[in-house]
Amino acid sequence: MNDLLMRTLRGEATTRRPVWIMRQAGRYLPEYRALRERHTFEELSGDAALSAEVTLQPLARFPFDAAIIFADLMSPVGSLGLSVRFDPGPVLSAPVRTAGAVEALVDPAADEIAPEVIQALRLVKRHLGQRAALLGFAGAPWSLAAYLVQGRGTPGFPALRALAVEDPGIVCALLERLTSLVSRYLAAQVEAGADAVQIFDTWAGVLSRADWTRLVRPHLVRLLESTRALGAPRILFVQDAPHLVEEYAALPVEALAVDWREDIASLQGRTNGSKALQGNLDPAILLAGPEPTRRAARALLDRTAPRGHIVNLGHGILPETPLESVEALIDVVHSETPP
Amino acid sequence: MNDLLMRTLRGEATTRRPVWIMRQAGRYLPEYRALRERHTFEELSGDAALSAEVTLQPLARFPFDAAIIFADLMSPVGSLGLSVRFDPGPVLSAPVRTAGAVEALVDPAADEIAPEVIQALRLVKRHLGQRAALLGFAGAPWSLAAYLVQGRGTPGFPALRALAVEDPGIVCALLERLTSLVSRYLAAQVEAGADAVQIFDTWAGVLSRADWTRLVRPHLVRLLESTRALGAPRILFVQDAPHLVEEYAALPVEALAVDWREDIASLQGRTNGSKALQGNLDPAILLAGPEPTRRAARALLDRTAPRGHIVNLGHGILPETPLESVEALIDVVHSETPP
Repeated sequence: MNDLLMRTLRGEATTRRPVWIMRQAGRYLPEYRALRERHTFEELSGDAALSAEVTLQPLARFPFDAAIIFADLMSPVGSLGLSVRFDPGPVLSAPVRTAGAVEALVDPAADEIAPEVIQALRLVKRHLGQRAALLGFAGAPWSLAAYLVQGRGTPGFPALRALAVEDPGIVCALLERLTSLVSRYLAAQVEAGADAVQIFDTWAGVLSRADWTRLVRPHLVRLLESTRALGAPRILFVQDAPHLVEEYAALPVEALAVDWREDIASLQGRTNGSKALQGNLDPAILLAGPEPTRRAARALLDRTAPRGHIVNLGHGILPETPLESVEALIDVVHSETPP
Repeated sequence: MNDLLMRTLRGEATTRRPVWIMRQAGRYLPEYRALRERHTFEELSGDAALSAEVTLQPLARFPFDAAIIFADLMSPVGSLGLSVRFDPGPVLSAPVRTAGAVEALVDPAADEIAPEVIQALRLVKRHLGQRAALLGFAGAPWSLAAYLVQGRGTPGFPALRALAVEDPGIVCALLERLTSLVSRYLAAQVEAGADAVQIFDTWAGVLSRADWTRLVRPHLVRLLESTRALGAPRILFVQDAPHLVEEYAALPVEALAVDWREDIASLQGRTNGSKALQGNLDPAILLAGPEPTRRAARALLDRTAPRGHIVNLGHGILPETPLESVEALIDVVHSETPP
């Protein structure tokens, strides 16, 4: 039984640090690329059996301490009555920019929110057993709203920022709907077997701290309050937002994941063990091969306290990453002398 | 004679704040779009007469206090012997990732560095006279290196981050070459009539503060030292790097331009008049129309001290911006009661 991740999330000491990698089920794996030759991304993420297979691929090759369900950030959005295609990122058939468009969103029943993801979690749980923790995930309300308002991934999401100024009431109403959606989606994931969940706030950093505090924070707090009772620890990932890390560190959540820009050792000192911290090796280092990865991983372990630290990258693993770099990272974590 | 910008850059008091807009010569202007129907971007930026025409377009429509020369960030790169095409952003025919590739870079004579830009500055100066300040510009060494190593604009520029870990000596050698190039390019711009120059460090934010300090700062300091004697004030623009703003604020430069994430009023307090500050209205606000622009511009002026403040956006103006929003911004600046 591998309870390294769960013990770390509960603030308990462990024999070594847990390690997993964002996007560990993905294009750097030859077995994933082989599947993608036969199936589109939509087919893989839209079918429970295929999602479960992809989720388990990295665990068959590497002794990761967690599996994270293979799904798209947009997977729950279809249940709102919105149509999403991939080109290659998500594209909404019609952006949500008016009060009418928000009101027209469907209020889905719990079992209508991405049922293929929920079913995939059940399948993975059955195969995985206690070998590793099973992670569910969802986008944070703001980061989902970014796609819904902009219509597709766009640097800085200016249409969202414009709407937030022009009519903050519409953005607030949309964030309320998304907060409710994400809350119920995560509850269904935990019920289906997720031991913990990661919430991705990928696009929070496009706002100033004042605007974030006014527009984003209340909904994030409400999401964290409504998911506390689930009993599954939450890891909150904040990306490209160094000006907001202190704010995120003060939120009521069990773990904070930060990108590679952040000095995680300093953050350990500032948070003083109040939450677990996850990260944050620069994924670009793994491109440079196993030796640079080994050196950087050792340096990360040397300058951080083991307790409360979940080893991970500071962003998703890059598709061109050599497998040997992943091996090197895991090897360094596994060979750390217990304190 | 309009010396508002120059007086502000020299730390002197003015009757009102100067205002100009990043990318003010660009796609939001119908007259620019009309030119683009007849010419490619390469034709416009590669021909001195066309560049001069584009540079002056916004001044014919709006009473901006500065004209900024229309050129591409990559304009000086051709003189290194590199081939750049646009698709639509710059794409290098061969990325620079080895010691050999850095050594093979041509060391251009001063008059070989983007002569079309230098000639365009002379033409603009002749037409502009003293109506507004004339700004030259260049990319900072790191932000040019980002394109040269990665080969094209790519989120986070992972190939550059990987090379910086794998072989920092190559990155350092490349940054030295680019520092020398940019220094001579800016000198030629000032000689051709630029009253001041803006240095764009658009991609500094992909690094942690420790890596930036080690890899980027020394070259930036050398560039600032080598261009001090030109006698033209320098505006240093740093984007998407809130964790580095304190470092940039401590650099020996006359003005710092920050993006919309930054609290520029607080930065005024922290820098205590030691340098001019430029910015930083969110360009997305202008998408929302003249009234939201007017409110946001008033709020910006209300919360900042006029002395040492150059009004601008926190990033380039977006192509979809209504002209009425630009008018509203200028109107608010022009109608501010002198202190």
